[in-house]
Amino acid sequence: MLGGQRMAWAAALAALVFLGGASSVLATDPTGADTLKASPDAPVNFVWVLITGFLVWFMQYGFALLGAGLIRVKNTVNYLTKSFLDFCMGSLAFWAFGFAFMFGGSGAVIGSAMANGLEAGNPFIGSSGFFLTGAAYDVTTIAYWWFQMVFAATAATIVAGAMAERTKINAYLAYSFLVTALIYPIYGHWLWGGGWLWTLPFGAGARDFAGSGVVHTVGGLTALVGAWMVGPRIGKYDPQGTPRVFKPSNLAFVVAGTFILFFGWFGFNPGSTLAATDLRISVIAVNTFLAGTTGALVAVYWGFVKNGKMDLVLACNGTLAGLVGITAPCAYVAPWASVVIGAVAALIMIWAAGFVERTLKVDDPVGAIAVHAGGGIWGVLAVGIFADGTYGGVSGLIKGQVGQMVAQLIDVGAVVAWVLVTAFVMFWLIKKTIGLRATREEELQGLDIPEHGSELYPSEEALAGTAKA
Amino acid sequence: MLGGQRMAWAAALAALVFLGGASSVLATDPTGADTLKASPDAPVNFVWVLITGFLVWFMQYGFALLGAGLIRVKNTVNYLTKSFLDFCMGSLAFWAFGFAFMFGGSGAVIGSAMANGLEAGNPFIGSSGFFLTGAAYDVTTIAYWWFQMVFAATAATIVAGAMAERTKINAYLAYSFLVTALIYPIYGHWLWGGGWLWTLPFGAGARDFAGSGVVHTVGGLTALVGAWMVGPRIGKYDPQGTPRVFKPSNLAFVVAGTFILFFGWFGFNPGSTLAATDLRISVIAVNTFLAGTTGALVAVYWGFVKNGKMDLVLACNGTLAGLVGITAPCAYVAPWASVVIGAVAALIMIWAAGFVERTLKVDDPVGAIAVHAGGGIWGVLAVGIFADGTYGGVSGLIKGQVGQMVAQLIDVGAVVAWVLVTAFVMFWLIKKTIGLRATREEELQGLDIPEHGSELYPSEEALAGTAKA
Amino acid sequence: MLGGQRMAWAAALAALVFLGGASSVLATDPTGADTLKASPDAPVNFVWVLITGFLVWFMQYGFALLGAGLIRVKNTVNYLTKSFLDFCMGSLAFWAFGFAFMFGGSGAVIGSAMANGLEAGNPFIGSSGFFLTGAAYDVTTIAYWWFQMVFAATAATIVAGAMAERTKINAYLAYSFLVTALIYPIYGHWLWGGGWLWTLPFGAGARDFAGSGVVHTVGGLTALVGAWMVGPRIGKYDPQGTPRVFKPSNLAFVVAGTFILFFGWFGFNPGSTLAATDLRISVIAVNTFLAGTTGALVAVYWGFVKNGKMDLVLACNGTLAGLVGITAPCAYVAPWASVVIGAVAALIMIWAAGFVERTLKVDDPVGAIAVHAGGGIWGVLAVGIFADGTYGGVSGLIKGQVGQMVAQLIDVGAVVAWVLVTAFVMFWLIKKTIGLRATREEELQGLDIPEHGSELYPSEEALAGTAKA
Repeated sequence: MLGGQRMAWAAALAALVFLGGASSVLATDPTGADTLKASPDAPVNFVWVLITGFLVWFMQYGFALLGAGLIRVKNTVNYLTKSFLDFCMGSLAFWAFGFAFMFGGSGAVIGSAMANGLEAGNPFIGSSGFFLTGAAYDVTTIAYWWFQMVFAATAATIVAGAMAERTKINAYLAYSFLVTALIYPIYGHWLWGGGWLWTLPFGAGARDFAGSGVVHTVGGLTALVGAWMVGPRIGKYDPQGTPRVFKPSNLAFVVAGTFILFFGWFGFNPGSTLAATDLRISVIAVNTFLAGTTGALVAVYWGFVKNGKMDLVLACNGTLAGLVGITAPCAYVAPWASVVIGAVAALIMIWAAGFVERTLKVDDPVGAIAVHAGGGIWGVLAVGIFADGTYGGVSGLIKGQVGQMVAQLIDVGAVVAWVLVTAFVMFWLIKKTIGLRATREEELQGLDIPEHGSELYPSEEALAGTAKA
Repeated sequence: MLGGQRMAWAAALAALVFLGGASSVLATDPTGADTLKASPDAPVNFVWVLITGFLVWFMQYGFALLGAGLIRVKNTVNYLTKSFLDFCMGSLAFWAFGFAFMFGGSGAVIGSAMANGLEAGNPFIGSSGFFLTGAAYDVTTIAYWWFQMVFAATAATIVAGAMAERTKINAYLAYSFLVTALIYPIYGHWLWGGGWLWTLPFGAGARDFAGSGVVHTVGGLTALVGAWMVGPRIGKYDPQGTPRVFKPSNLAFVVAGTFILFFGWFGFNPGSTLAATDLRISVIAVNTFLAGTTGALVAVYWGFVKNGKMDLVLACNGTLAGLVGITAPCAYVAPWASVVIGAVAALIMIWAAGFVERTLKVDDPVGAIAVHAGGGIWGVLAVGIFADGTYGGVSGLIKGQVGQMVAQLIDVGAVVAWVLVTAFVMFWLIKKTIGLRATREEELQGLDIPEHGSELYPSEEALAGTAKA
Repeated sequence: MLGGQRMAWAAALAALVFLGGASSVLATDPTGADTLKASPDAPVNFVWVLITGFLVWFMQYGFALLGAGLIRVKNTVNYLTKSFLDFCMGSLAFWAFGFAFMFGGSGAVIGSAMANGLEAGNPFIGSSGFFLTGAAYDVTTIAYWWFQMVFAATAATIVAGAMAERTKINAYLAYSFLVTALIYPIYGHWLWGGGWLWTLPFGAGARDFAGSGVVHTVGGLTALVGAWMVGPRIGKYDPQGTPRVFKPSNLAFVVAGTFILFFGWFGFNPGSTLAATDLRISVIAVNTFLAGTTGALVAVYWGFVKNGKMDLVLACNGTLAGLVGITAPCAYVAPWASVVIGAVAALIMIWAAGFVERTLKVDDPVGAIAVHAGGGIWGVLAVGIFADGTYGGVSGLIKGQVGQMVAQLIDVGAVVAWVLVTAFVMFWLIKKTIGLRATREEELQGLDIPEHGSELYPSEEALAGTAKA
C-alpha cells in the first residue's frame, strides 16, 4: 500500500509542477511594483488586510481550545486533531476550488482598494482563479485570497464542536473539504461576490459586513444538520428524552479559547473593510468590543438571577453570541446600538440553546448552533434595524427605512434554505460512503485511542518509555 | 424575580435606543472621510493605534493565566471569571463615564495626529463624551477611546490577583465599575488629559509615557488597599504573624501568562505614541524588550545566588517589574538606560514583595503590589533620572537637569495620595453594602463551587453526565 | 556572597551609565524626524517591521509550549525556565555583540527602506554597533535590530528541545549567550550581512529569504551537536541500541505550541521584506500558509497509511517542517510550488527523524533536528529549484537556470561546516567548564526539584501552605 501511496504523491506533485510552470507566464502583477505605482495607499491597506487576517486565522486556536474544554477528556486528542486539520484541508479546497467559485467573476465588492483582477462569473457562481494560477498570481488577488481563506476556515471549524465526541475523523475531514470548496463559497458569492443577494432591489441590497450570515449562520446551520444526522452522544438523553448535563472538562481551556476568539474578532470585523484608508475601522473595532462585553454581562447576570451562580461558560458563550451578532452590522451602527445588539444576542443564544437541546433534541456539546446560527441570524436582521445611515448608504428601521429589513429577511431565508438543503445532501453522502459515526465501543472508550493512538495525558507507563512499535 | 429582571433589561435597552437616536445627528466625522482628507497619514496611524490596542487588550488573557497559575486550584474558576468580567464591566463604565471624565475637555495631549474633538473641561476633571454619543461619534475620538479603554482595563485587572481567593465576585465587579468610571480616569486626566500634573512648571511638566504611574501604580496601590481591607487568606500567617508559603498551583499558567503579558506590552508602550509617524516607536519597542529581559535575568540570578535554585516565578515577576518600570520612561531614554531601569526594577520588586508580606502583613497571593506599585513608582522616577533629552524635551539627572525630577516626585506624591484615599473610600463603601469577603466556609471549600457551581476540572461523575437541574 | 553579588551589579550598572552617557552624543537620528522627512513611507514600513517582529517574538511562547508538551512532566519547569531565559540571555548577547558582528559594516541588504547607518566591516564579520550606542542610536538601526534580535532568539531556542530532560540550566544559559553572540551572527553576516555567500558569482548569489538556513539550519545543527554531546536520556536506548518511545506528556501543549508557532511564522516570513512597500508580502504570507497546511496533511496521512492512526504529533511536526522548508524560498516561488515544498519537507522530516534516532542514535526528545535542520536544508535547496524569476532576480531549475542551485549548494556546505565545527567547540568548552549534563540522580528524579525547587503541579501539601524558608 505504501508503494501506491508514494506513487500517488509523486504523481500529484508532478502534476502541480506541470500546471504551475505552464500557467505562471500569465501572472498579473506578482511583485506588486505596478500596483504600488497605481495606488500609493496599497502598503497600508496590505498591512491591514494581512495582519487582521493573521488574527482571524489565530481564531482556529481559540476554537480548538474552547471545544476541547467543553467536551470530555477522552475525546480531546480527537477534537484537537480535527480542529488542526480542518483548516489544513480547507486551505487546499479553497485554493483549488472555493475561491474561484466565490469570487471569480465578480471582483471584490467591499473595499475598492483591494479589488482584484478576476473576470468571468454570474450572479450565482464564480468561475476563475482556480489554484491561484494565471491571472490570479497577483499581489492584490492573493492578499484578497488570504483574507477570504481565513473566513472560510472559520465557517468550517464551527461544526467541529457540535458534532464532537462521536464523529469519525475521516468523515469530518471529508466534510471540511466539501464545505470549503462548495457550500460556503457559493452562498458567499451571492453576497460578497456581488451576486443576487448583494444586488437585491431593497435598501442597499442585502448587507452582511463581516459575516454574521456568510460565516456564522452557514457554520451554525451546517452544525445543526450535522449534529442532527450523527445523532446525540450515548447517554445524552434518558429514555424519556430528557437531556442530561455533561460538565465541561476544563474551564481554563474554555476561557482561554474565548479570550483568543475575542482577540481574533478584532481582525474579523475591522479587517473586513479590506482597507485602512477606510477610517471607519475604529468604530467597527469599538462596536465589536462593546457587543462582546455586553453579551458576557447580560448572559452571566441572567444566569445569576436564575441560579444564583456566576456561570463562566455562560459568560463565554454570551460574549461569543454578542460578537457573532455584531459581525454583520458592525460597520453600519453606532456604539450605543452595539450595546443593544450584544445584549439581545446573548438572550437569543440562551433561548436557542434550550430550543436545540430540549425541543429539537439535537445534541450540541459546545453550544455552537445557538451561538453561531442564533447570533448570526440576529446579526443579519440587526442591520435592518440599527443601521444609522452614516456608512455605505445603509439605513434601517431606526431611520424609518423598511427596505433594508426586507433585503435582510430575504438573505436570512436564502441562507437557511441553502445550508439546510446542501448540508443535508453532503452529510448524507458522507454517511453512505465513509460513514459519519464512530462505533459504540469507540465512543464509550473515547475516540482518542482508537483513532489517534494517543491520550491527552498518557499514563505513567506510557510516559516511562515503551518498546518502539 | 425574572419578570422584574426582564423589565429592567427592556427599560435599559429602550433608554439606549432613545439616547442613541437622539444624539446621532451631532456626530463629527463618523465615517472618516473628512479626517482622511485633512490627514493623509491617518490610515497608518489608525492601524498602529488599533493593532497595538488589540495587543494591550490581549494582556487581559495574560493576567488571567498568570493569576490562575499562582493561586490554589479551588479558586481558579472564580479567578478566571473575575478576570473575564472585570474588563466587560469596565468597558461599560468607561464608555458611559470614565472616558468623559478623563479626556473630555482636554483633548489628547500625546500624538497630535490622534487629537480628538472633545471640548469642555478643566485641570481636574473632564466633562464631555459620555456614552460616545454626540460629537464623540467620530472616527478619531473612537480610535482614541479604544486605546484608552484597554489601558483602563489593565489598571482594573491588576487588583484581581492581590485580592484573590477570598473576595466575593459581586464585590469585585462593583469595584471594577467604580475604578474604571472614577478613580482611574480622574487621576489620568491630571496627566494624560492635560491636567495640572501635565502642566507643572518643573522640567517639561510631569511625564509618564505609557503609564508606570497612570496604569500600574494606580492598579498596584488600589490592590494594596483592597488586599489590606479584605484581610489575609486563612492560614497565610501563623499566630506569631509569620507568613507561610502557598506554592503556585500551575507554573505552566504562570509562564504562559508572562509570555502573553510581555507580548501585549509591545502594544502598551510603543502604541502610546498614538502615531506611527512618530518613528521613535522602534526605540520604545527595544527599550521595552531590554528592560523586560534584564529584569528576568537579575531576578532569577538574585534567587540563584540566595537559594541555589533558578526560580521560574521570580524570573516571571522580574520580567514584569522590568516592564512596569520602563513603561513611563520608555520613550525618553536610550537602550543602555533601559537595561539599568529593568535591573533596578527587579531588585525593587523583590524588596517590595518582602516589605508587603512581612512588614505590612498584607497578603498578596500573586505579588501584584510589588510588581505594579513598586515597579511603577520606580518607573515614574526613572524618567527624572535617565531621560536623555532626545525626545519630547524631557531631560533628567544624567543630563544635569533637576527640574524634571521635581515634577516626577510631585506626580508620585499625587498618585499615592489620590489612590490611597479614594480606594479606601471605595472599598469601605463596598464592604458596608455588598460585603467584601466570602464566608469562612466558602473560603475553606474554595470559591468555585459556592459562587460559580463549577470546578476547574470536575470529578468523573460530573463529567459522566447528571440529570438536568 | 550576597555582598560581592551586590557590588558586581553595582559596578555593572555604573559602567553602563558611564558608557551610555559618553556615547549618546554620537546618535544618528534617535527621534526619527529626519528619517520621516527623507522617507514618507517610513511609518508603514516601521509598523510592518515592528508588528511582524512582535509575532516572531511570540514564537518563543510557542516553542516553550511545544517542547513542554513533548517531554515528561518531571522536567517541565526546567524546560519552561530554559525557554523563557534563553531569549533573555540572548537579548543581552545580541545587544552587546551579536548585532555588531552580524550587521556592522554591511548595512541591511534586504529591504532598502530599512538600510541602516552602520559602517565598518568585511565579507566575514561585522564590527560596529556594539551596545546600540553611538551611530546605532538611530530609529532605523534600532527597528532593524529588533527584527534581527527575534530571529537570533528563534535560532537559539530550537536547541532547548533536542537537549531537554538532561542538560543543566547553567550550561544551557551559557550556550544561549555564545550562540547569539557568535555562532549565529557570524554565519548570518555571510548571508544577510552582505558577506561572501550573498555575493557568490552564481545565480543571484546565495539567497535565503527568511532563514531556512540562517535560522533553522543553524538551530537544528547546533541541536544535533548538543544532543549528541550530552548523550541520550537514561532509558532511551535499550542495551541493543534500539530506541524506546516516550509518549508526549501533554498533547494540548503540543498543539497549542504549533498554533502559536504557525501564527508567529506570519511575522517571520512576510516581515522579512523589512518593508510594506514591497507588496510581495501577500504572496509570501500565502506561500507560508500553504506550505504549513500541506506539510500537516502529508505527514498525518503518511502516518495513517502506515499505522491506521491520525497522529497529532506527526501533523504538528509536518506543519513545522513545511513552514521551515518554505522559509528560504517564500518570496521567490508561486503558491503551487509552496504546496510542493511543504509536502516534500514533511516527508524529509519523517525520514530525518528516523535517521537521527536510529542511525545516528542521537536522542532528540522533540524532533527539533529533523524539523529544523532537515526542513531547513531542503528549504535552502528549494530556492534553487522553484524560484520562478518574478522576484529579486532569482531563477531556479524550473526556469532552466543551474547557477542559483550552485550558490544554494555552496551555502548548504558552508552552514553545515560552520555550525558543526563551532558548535562542537562551544559545547566542548561548556562541558569542560560548567559541565553539560545533570547527575544521574537529578535526571531520574527530574530536573524540576533539584534545579528549580518547584514542580509544575505541586502536591496538595505544598499548595496547602508551608513555613517560610
